[in-house]
Amino acid sequence: MKRIPLLAFAAATSVCIIASMSAPAGGAEDEASPIFGVRIPTGYRQWSMIAVSHEAGQLNELRGILGNPVAMKAFVDGTLPFPDGTIIAKVAWKELSSVGDDAALGSMQAYVPGAPTTVQIMVKDSSKYAETGGWGFGRFIGGKPTDEAQHETCFPCHQANAKDHDFVFTRYAP
Amino acid sequence: MKRIPLLAFAAATSVCIIASMSAPAGGAEDEASPIFGVRIPTGYRQWSMIAVSHEAGQLNELRGILGNPVAMKAFVDGTLPFPDGTIIAKVAWKELSSVGDDAALGSMQAYVPGAPTTVQIMVKDSSKYAETGGWGFGRFIGGKPTDEAQHETCFPCHQANAKDHDFVFTRYAP
Repeated sequence: MKRIPLLAFAAATSVCIIASMSAPAGGAEDEASPIFGVRIPTGYRQWSMIAVSHEAGQLNELRGILGNPVAMKAFVDGTLPFPDGTIIAKVAWKELSSVGDDAALGSMQAYVPGAPTTVQIMVKDSSKYAETGGWGFGRFIGGKPTDEAQHETCFPCHQANAKDHDFVFTRYAP
Repeated sequence: MKRIPLLAFAAATSVCIIASMSAPAGGAEDEASPIFGVRIPTGYRQWSMIAVSHEAGQLNELRGILGNPVAMKAFVDGTLPFPDGTIIAKVAWKELSSVGDDAALGSMQAYVPGAPTTVQIMVKDSSKYAETGGWGFGRFIGGKPTDEAQHETCFPCHQANAKDHDFVFTRYAP
């Protein structure tokens, strides 16, 4: 794979995010998560895609993981730890069978996003969040942050399972 | 859900795409698909995400569907037919079990992108592609377009299964 000239990429995406930050994107930007005070970032839904994921079992979800320009540059570069200013947004939906896609494929096998479930945000600020690996967390349902008890579980789980990747589960999907 | 002011959104994303078009993104921009002459668009991997999907069965793939600014505005607005200039890129990977995510979730249920498989591009140009619903198609493996016989199957399948959505399978995932 050829490497993207990252200065150019960063410049392009910086223009993008600065521009998009001026446009309100809906949601609950006013409501911050407990413990961390993390908000849903304005315009995050237009950010570039880091990866996608599929959670089977009881969750039964599809997810898109998006990154702001600082995040995208770090993921593409493979920079660890992620720099301050990194923001990662995970958008999740119930997995829904797709009639049209199944017809095209000739069997029941295609799944697409159904009802939205959660939006989860990670913000890197190594000073502000020094006690939790430099990360602040926010988990939102219907635009509203979930409760304090749930936010107490964020870092212990990331610490136990993603310590070797600066506490971030997601890898960049080229 | 609050509506995004779309003029502002379009302006923001237009700035983004114009900027990012100046940065070569790697890939095989020189190699056009048979029949349609569609190329992998420069910088497409930084486009916004329209949706994600999961193809089970033999395909066993996860996919991210990205759109250029014209596409994103049309998807968010619900504009049909899609305007000329719309470009949709579907990036696919083999679905891979995620050890870290499984550990966090307490059971084998998490899947993430593995080896890249195909990149598929749809370009709307109602004059150039008048005989195929206004759409040109390109399917690429390892950056190289697949053969003519495969490209002959694109429009008949989209016509048979996605005619009510201007021949586009993907819906916007909010």
